[in-house]
Amino acid sequence: MANDEVILLDFWPSMFGMRLRIALAEKEIKYEYKDEDLRNKSPLLLQMNPIHKKIPVLIHNGKPICESIIGVEYIEEVWKDKAPLLPSDPYERAQARFWADYIDKKFYDSARKIWATKGEEQEAGKKDFIDVLKVLEGALGDKPFFGGDNFGYVDVALIGFYSWFHAYETYGNFSTEAECPKFVAWAKRCMQRDSVAKTLPDQHKVLEFVKILREKYGLE
Amino acid sequence: MANDEVILLDFWPSMFGMRLRIALAEKEIKYEYKDEDLRNKSPLLLQMNPIHKKIPVLIHNGKPICESIIGVEYIEEVWKDKAPLLPSDPYERAQARFWADYIDKKFYDSARKIWATKGEEQEAGKKDFIDVLKVLEGALGDKPFFGGDNFGYVDVALIGFYSWFHAYETYGNFSTEAECPKFVAWAKRCMQRDSVAKTLPDQHKVLEFVKILREKYGLE
Repeated sequence: MANDEVILLDFWPSMFGMRLRIALAEKEIKYEYKDEDLRNKSPLLLQMNPIHKKIPVLIHNGKPICESIIGVEYIEEVWKDKAPLLPSDPYERAQARFWADYIDKKFYDSARKIWATKGEEQEAGKKDFIDVLKVLEGALGDKPFFGGDNFGYVDVALIGFYSWFHAYETYGNFSTEAECPKFVAWAKRCMQRDSVAKTLPDQHKVLEFVKILREKYGLE
Repeated sequence: MANDEVILLDFWPSMFGMRLRIALAEKEIKYEYKDEDLRNKSPLLLQMNPIHKKIPVLIHNGKPICESIIGVEYIEEVWKDKAPLLPSDPYERAQARFWADYIDKKFYDSARKIWATKGEEQEAGKKDFIDVLKVLEGALGDKPFFGGDNFGYVDVALIGFYSWFHAYETYGNFSTEAECPKFVAWAKRCMQRDSVAKTLPDQHKVLEFVKILREKYGLE
C-alpha cells in the first residue's frame, strides 16, 4: 500500500472526524487533511458524500468512505497488520460494535443538549449524559481500555468526545471527575497515546468554538 | 458448530427481527424462536439486553448479541462458509455497511410517520419515505440485488420492511409500484427466496397489527 492516496475531509472540532484521525495515526498511515468550511462545503465533499453531505469522509485512492465508524472499520480491514483495533473473536467483535453503536445512539444527543439548549431540556440532557457515562463506566469495568489491555475500536469511537468535556462541564455546571472518576481515568490513559494526544484539540479551544455556536443560537 | 445452541428473542412483525431470521435461514442455522410480549417482556430478554431492553436478541451458546445489524454481521462471521452475505473486498464491505446504516437512519422513522401520525407530519413522512426509496433505487441501480448478483447484507437489512408496505400504502394512500417500480421489482425478486418468503409475515396480517396500534394511538 506504499502508493496509496489517502485524503480526509474533516472539520477540526468533529469528534467523528477524530475517530478517523486517531485510527489513521494508530495505523501510521500518511494522509492529506482537508479542513472543511461547513457553511460553504467544498465541491469535493458534496461529490464524495452526496447522500449525507457531511464530514468526515475518508477518500482512499479516489473512492469515498462515509460515516466515521464505517471508516474506522474500513481502515482496520485495509491496514490489518498494524495495530489491530478489533478483536479477532466474533463475539468480542460484536460487543465492540455494540458499544460503538451505543455511543452513536446515546452520547452525542445528550451531550449536545448540555451546551445547545437551556432550562429543562438542558437539565434532562445533563442527566442523560451522566447516565450514559455511568453505563460506559460499567462496560469498561476494571479494564484499562474498552479494548481490554489494548486501545481499540470502542476507545477510538469515544475518546474524541473528551475534547468537548470542558465545554460540557462549563455549560452544564458539573464535574465529570466527581461523577465518573473511572471514565476520566480512562480518558487520561488514552491521552497518553501519541495517536490521541496529537489528534484531540485543546479543550479550551473547543470551548471557544462552542461559545461562538451558542452566540449564534442566541444562548449567550 | 453442530452442538450450538441458538435462541432468537423476537416479535413477529419486527423488521429488525426479520433480518436475523433471514440471515439464520440463509446460513441454514437451526434455532429456537421465542416471540416476546413487548408489554410484558420476559426476564430472559431483560437479562440478555439490559441496556436497550429491546428485541431482537440473538443468544448463541448463552451469550447475547443485541442490535439487529450487529447480529447479522455476527452470523456472517461465525458461519462464514455458507451463503456469504458481505463481499470480501473492504471497499465493497464499507459500501454495504453504509447502505445498511442509511436504512437504519432514514427508513424506519419516515415509514413510521406514515401510519403513526396524521396531517402535516404524516405528509412529511410520506414524502421522506418516497425520497428514501428513490435513493435506495439509485443505490440498487441495474443490479438484481443490493449485493450484486447475489442476495446479501443490504438485502437482508431492507427486505423485512416490505411486509409493512401494504400498511404504509393503505394509510399513506400511495402506490409504491407507481412511485418506485424498480424497488418493487427488487422486493419481488427477494420474495422468491425461501429465506425471505418463509420469514416475512403476510402483508395483510401486518396491516391488521398496525390497525390495532393506530387504535391505541387514537388514530382510528
